[in-house]
Amino acid sequence: MLRTTDPDFDVRFRRIVDDRRESDTDVASDVSAIIARVKARGDEALAEYTQRFDDHQLTDDADWRISPEDCRAAFDGLDTALRDALSLAADRIRAFHLKQRPADSDEIDDAGVRLGARWRAVDAAGLYVPGGRAAYPSSLLMNAIPARVAGVERLVVVTPTPKGKVNPLVLAAAHLAGVDEIWRIGGAQAIAALAHGTGRIRKVDVITGPGNAWVAEAKRQLFGVVGIDMVAGPSEILVIADGMNDPDWIAADLLSQAEHDPDAQAILITDSEAFADQVEDRVDVQCAMLSTGKVARRSWDDHGVMIVVEKLEEAIGLANALAAEHVELAVDDPEPFLDGIRHAGSVFAGRLAPEAVGDYVAGPNHVLPTGRRARFASGLSVLDFMKRTSFIALDDASFARIGPAAAALAHAEGLPAHAHSIEVRLK
Amino acid sequence: MLRTTDPDFDVRFRRIVDDRRESDTDVASDVSAIIARVKARGDEALAEYTQRFDDHQLTDDADWRISPEDCRAAFDGLDTALRDALSLAADRIRAFHLKQRPADSDEIDDAGVRLGARWRAVDAAGLYVPGGRAAYPSSLLMNAIPARVAGVERLVVVTPTPKGKVNPLVLAAAHLAGVDEIWRIGGAQAIAALAHGTGRIRKVDVITGPGNAWVAEAKRQLFGVVGIDMVAGPSEILVIADGMNDPDWIAADLLSQAEHDPDAQAILITDSEAFADQVEDRVDVQCAMLSTGKVARRSWDDHGVMIVVEKLEEAIGLANALAAEHVELAVDDPEPFLDGIRHAGSVFAGRLAPEAVGDYVAGPNHVLPTGRRARFASGLSVLDFMKRTSFIALDDASFARIGPAAAALAHAEGLPAHAHSIEVRLK
Repeated sequence: MLRTTDPDFDVRFRRIVDDRRESDTDVASDVSAIIARVKARGDEALAEYTQRFDDHQLTDDADWRISPEDCRAAFDGLDTALRDALSLAADRIRAFHLKQRPADSDEIDDAGVRLGARWRAVDAAGLYVPGGRAAYPSSLLMNAIPARVAGVERLVVVTPTPKGKVNPLVLAAAHLAGVDEIWRIGGAQAIAALAHGTGRIRKVDVITGPGNAWVAEAKRQLFGVVGIDMVAGPSEILVIADGMNDPDWIAADLLSQAEHDPDAQAILITDSEAFADQVEDRVDVQCAMLSTGKVARRSWDDHGVMIVVEKLEEAIGLANALAAEHVELAVDDPEPFLDGIRHAGSVFAGRLAPEAVGDYVAGPNHVLPTGRRARFASGLSVLDFMKRTSFIALDDASFARIGPAAAALAHAEGLPAHAHSIEVRLK
Repeated sequence: MLRTTDPDFDVRFRRIVDDRRESDTDVASDVSAIIARVKARGDEALAEYTQRFDDHQLTDDADWRISPEDCRAAFDGLDTALRDALSLAADRIRAFHLKQRPADSDEIDDAGVRLGARWRAVDAAGLYVPGGRAAYPSSLLMNAIPARVAGVERLVVVTPTPKGKVNPLVLAAAHLAGVDEIWRIGGAQAIAALAHGTGRIRKVDVITGPGNAWVAEAKRQLFGVVGIDMVAGPSEILVIADGMNDPDWIAADLLSQAEHDPDAQAILITDSEAFADQVEDRVDVQCAMLSTGKVARRSWDDHGVMIVVEKLEEAIGLANALAAEHVELAVDDPEPFLDGIRHAGSVFAGRLAPEAVGDYVAGPNHVLPTGRRARFASGLSVLDFMKRTSFIALDDASFARIGPAAAALAHAEGLPAHAHSIEVRLK
């Protein structure tokens, strides 16, 4: 627990801001070897790696791919409540992202120059879906639906199926989102296959989705060959709460982040030290009851922070320094905080907006910048699957008006062919 | 010269598409050593590297920084025509980018959930400006103005000044764009200083701007610590021209790209082989006259391509495969081409839109995706200096309506603390 009145507060707070909680596993050379091998030997390399890492043999088509029929069957096989919940989530995510579609522009300005820009979807997108513990159907929806809304024609999922085991919830989500292909491969080899293409798998233009250190490193190395989303680190939440909250609610919110990962971080800022103590007590009680209590406990013990401020408005400056992935505003009037917080992935305003609502069904994307990256990065959106082409057109009058300035600048920069391409038209 | 009717056209065209023209200089380990040293030893390391690489000694403040007064003096010292040309460029770039500023959203949907997103500028941006031959004032404007329009409060330029020499045109552009700080450092060490900060130089949130292989690799390695723009390769132009053009004009356009760099690429697609021959002749004539003719000649000989199609509409599909940085449409009616070309950095429509107009004064950004990256990337824009924070707020009714679905999904994903944070509020 830190108090802003502590003499060493600045130093300790700075240490929290600077702590990235990211293990620098050096997998770069392993990953570049895997990429080179997949590029050179294609499907053969994929089969070898999948045998070795996932204990799954890729021989027949059914070993390689999960069919749309299997996805539909998985969806139909869900119990009704879960199927409805997944459908509600998909509908709301779609509705929110539909409003993100950017407008084209096309205007003629005062000089008579026609200027504009057109947004178009990428042709094909690849989504990585982790296997095992972190195989979340909600992540599949959050990655696939923005791509579909953008107008991506070909939507490809890669996911490892260790010992051949598939996750029915993930398949159900793939059905809902309308994924076109699902390949049973994972790791850096799957990213390499999506980026470079193989005999079976055609290459894509953009790759998104979470993964382990190998997957993240492969995306980083292939950035430029394909587009990628932001490399993500451990998750984090900042809860700004006055003393009028039920400590049980706030403890639950902190733990909902902590249960993800021992490296996750939950931070509480409050103006009541008594309230902070109550929250701490409730964290202990809840941890003992949770099936994920061990992970949550470690995250809270290693990375949990409580900061007591004199006035809750001080939290705004601290929140901007922390640039957290998730920020909850558990106060009656969240508006001044919402206005003041410039750096955050997503804000959950008011006492009835626990982060978990946003993780699943609210509509905004849950793929958000971590590790203070909200200073410069945004959550995943339709724009990650689109790109903009600008255009200009001139007539005689407008060309005569702005052409000479361009020629003058070209000469000044020592680029005579640039100048000539204008001057030859001015004659 | 390729003809779509050639039997081996597909193979040869595919080879052109796949040729990235990018030298894989392996500077990764040099660069990571430089970054580590700057991170550890700050200004001292910067001074050592600057002495070694730029033959410039960093001792007094005046060695480290170029003052705003020097920039103003450089601007005032330009001849009138050049000053006016630079001002026209700045005004038009500003006007175009002002229209890119994204709108915030804030709505209450059918379920009673308040949903929205707010765009905010990053706090500080760093712009790399190369020294020597490629020190282009137009590039400074194209990077700095979008940052300023975005609302970035602190705009920092780093630029090497070999043997202490500065480029007055670059200083004049910095004055026009309103740059806050200019540091006389370059290379990977300058990128490291911007990303991590040193005693003298406070760190920034986003770094953009062109540079050599060391600069590009440093940006790549520091991607995630800061935001970066797309790593750029050699420039390229695709000119789609019917046989009715003046071959002199089209030759000039091709050479305006070729003169940049021996690795630059100029491609002509036309439906008239006779016209292609005439263009080839004019390329020879113009090359002989240009002060940059040697570079342009090498680029044209090594990478220049002419493709003859039967019908000019075939150029649309080829253009989408090439996904070129610049596409010129030298035809009477460019509209069908503009509609059909999905993948291009920027399109120059009609016979009076040579690329050079767009490079300097038209208004759209000239920092564009190269090496087929227009498949997934856009030109530099105001959005590169902003980020979006989404937010939600719920009342009792809307929480009761969508909360249970979130809890059901949380349970299904094995995240009980997520579920509890909702259930505890539903009681």
